[in-house]
Amino acid sequence: MFMFEKPYGMRDSLPGLYETKKKVRHSLTEVMYGWGYRLMETPTLEFYDTVGVQSAITDTQLFKLLDQNGQTLVLRPDMTGPIARVAASKLHEQAYPLRVGYAANVFRAQEREGGRPSEFEQVGIELIGDGSISADAEVIALVVFALKNAGLQSFKIAIGHVALAETLFLDVLGNTERANVLRRFLYEKNYVGYRQHVKQLPLSSIDKTRLLQLLELRGGQEVIQRAEEIVVSQEGKAVLAELKALWETLEDYGCTEYIRLDLSMVSHMSYYTGILFEVFADHVGSVIGSGGRYDQLLAHFDAPAPATGFGLRLDRLLEALDAKEMHEPQEAVIFSKEQRLEAFAFAEKERSKGKKIVLQDLAGIENIDAMTKAFEQVTYFIGARKEEQNG
Amino acid sequence: MFMFEKPYGMRDSLPGLYETKKKVRHSLTEVMYGWGYRLMETPTLEFYDTVGVQSAITDTQLFKLLDQNGQTLVLRPDMTGPIARVAASKLHEQAYPLRVGYAANVFRAQEREGGRPSEFEQVGIELIGDGSISADAEVIALVVFALKNAGLQSFKIAIGHVALAETLFLDVLGNTERANVLRRFLYEKNYVGYRQHVKQLPLSSIDKTRLLQLLELRGGQEVIQRAEEIVVSQEGKAVLAELKALWETLEDYGCTEYIRLDLSMVSHMSYYTGILFEVFADHVGSVIGSGGRYDQLLAHFDAPAPATGFGLRLDRLLEALDAKEMHEPQEAVIFSKEQRLEAFAFAEKERSKGKKIVLQDLAGIENIDAMTKAFEQVTYFIGARKEEQNG
Repeated sequence: MFMFEKPYGMRDSLPGLYETKKKVRHSLTEVMYGWGYRLMETPTLEFYDTVGVQSAITDTQLFKLLDQNGQTLVLRPDMTGPIARVAASKLHEQAYPLRVGYAANVFRAQEREGGRPSEFEQVGIELIGDGSISADAEVIALVVFALKNAGLQSFKIAIGHVALAETLFLDVLGNTERANVLRRFLYEKNYVGYRQHVKQLPLSSIDKTRLLQLLELRGGQEVIQRAEEIVVSQEGKAVLAELKALWETLEDYGCTEYIRLDLSMVSHMSYYTGILFEVFADHVGSVIGSGGRYDQLLAHFDAPAPATGFGLRLDRLLEALDAKEMHEPQEAVIFSKEQRLEAFAFAEKERSKGKKIVLQDLAGIENIDAMTKAFEQVTYFIGARKEEQNG
Repeated sequence: MFMFEKPYGMRDSLPGLYETKKKVRHSLTEVMYGWGYRLMETPTLEFYDTVGVQSAITDTQLFKLLDQNGQTLVLRPDMTGPIARVAASKLHEQAYPLRVGYAANVFRAQEREGGRPSEFEQVGIELIGDGSISADAEVIALVVFALKNAGLQSFKIAIGHVALAETLFLDVLGNTERANVLRRFLYEKNYVGYRQHVKQLPLSSIDKTRLLQLLELRGGQEVIQRAEEIVVSQEGKAVLAELKALWETLEDYGCTEYIRLDLSMVSHMSYYTGILFEVFADHVGSVIGSGGRYDQLLAHFDAPAPATGFGLRLDRLLEALDAKEMHEPQEAVIFSKEQRLEAFAFAEKERSKGKKIVLQDLAGIENIDAMTKAFEQVTYFIGARKEEQNG
């Protein structure tokens, strides 16, 4: 092994990238704070039996280790579980609705082939204890305002509802197993497979058409009206009423130009319980964030409460922003012992103006030409006199 | 297991503490940036065979896990190793001296008895490629300026040199094994044991006195003169000359009121190679930070270079500062559907002034008295009219 190797999927953020991340992270959290969210931090390690098993992340993606007592720990795969744990144990005396946020690294083991990071930063919020549609709308509007504040021009939030496809499938197919087969096609976004599967089902052509039309339920507000013809169950009607109220609230937020409904959207098993969404940006292949309502999770932490939230991936947002690495200009003051005191005083004066000043003993430099190249300006306090040189 | 349990030594930073940490972290990094250090981030996981074995942290304190290929990974126990890896592999084309910093969580498994955190944040810097005493002085002065900027009033930096006790022990005792016995007493700060051990050694009373006087070499600049009578080897003289030059440089920085020499200070085996130091604050039992010169580490990463640096523990600094939790005031706007649009507009206007505004649908509140208690001011947009209420 070469000494400079890193574990698979692990990445360094060198200073230029570090500053860019800091700036973009700040532009997101600034809006979160403005909307009354308070940020917090949880440990990197959690018990597998608490946060691990409640996570939406598959078991094979968890980094696991044993503690000294033989209990299995995980590196947190997301922040929703840890925040649910804290909300249930420490924040429960605070009055709901609770608004908390985070900017934190999460961990997901990757197959060698993928080239995806195993550790990446998520910036997100959780809104706990508010089951109203206004809470769903707030979370989605906050994504819009935060991304705009980060400077992202062109993005779309696709919104769906877990119960919509579910109720249609049950209505048409009659049992959960057959519904699950169809849901899996949608979850994998394998629409060709979905169509082929539907065509060979022993159904009336009317029912087949209803299942196929589900895929067409994408677009603006008009989608809801079209859906009313396909989804006729009482639960389906209730879902469509929710989506209508959501749309109207997002109109009041002035956000709908960034929204498109996608009623064929489904969730991985048993995590989201209502409205859910994914954030897409131009030129980025993967979703840059996602979120939704998860009204069952808090009950696992003995504190049942409705909840909704989102998480944005900072690395993919940077890609979407095509963010350049940031290098703040620095100046150098190079001194020899004779004028050390003068050099120190000069550096302090410049620093007090907000300048970034490297103070360097000439004796510690191996190659002065290479060393000074990186600086905007170099001031020498060497021997008897001070000299300036623009870099 | 209760669902809200965390692994041993793992802690949450709730919003109040989170903001305090952010403020203190900023006060430290502000000075680091001003002195020309660039911050960076490295992965949480590293290979045991690279960063793990080169760490100054004992093997039993490492959190280890296996990756998919059966290689042992560690949760980084400090940042010096990872930064050495990066400096050797990716920053080597940049001209030395290299100034990099970090604010990062590190991991050290704790025995159940201790009550110490297993994950804590270190804020620190590394100055790589400068073997001069000015580099040692810069690092120590930077600690002083950073702690003052954080508002710490009363602290001391104890400075020693690994080679001083070493050369005295070898001079008096003649071999490394016997020197190691004495060094262990000093490393454990077991001065009673040291004295008892010295008294029973088969040495002349002059030599015993020299060994016992080592413990008295603590204080200001005058310590160096006293040491010159005890430490007579050529290496010893060179070390004292280094310390003298260091003191004079720190005088030019105006820092010596925070400095005391402690020439009985020793290092754990084979990490530090020259000047080393520990930072103490009133009312805090443990060191709040430490640092020193480590001229051998970079060679393990195939890029030999002198280096020095420090790391401060944010949790202990907060304790030393007796830092209160910070809660930024928030206001609430509570609306019902009828006035939703007006409420949104009002909230946006207030947010644009920098206020933190929770926008809450009345329908999402379970207990309005409990909910509104937390806010400085509550504005209602309900039914037909707007109402204000001071909290």
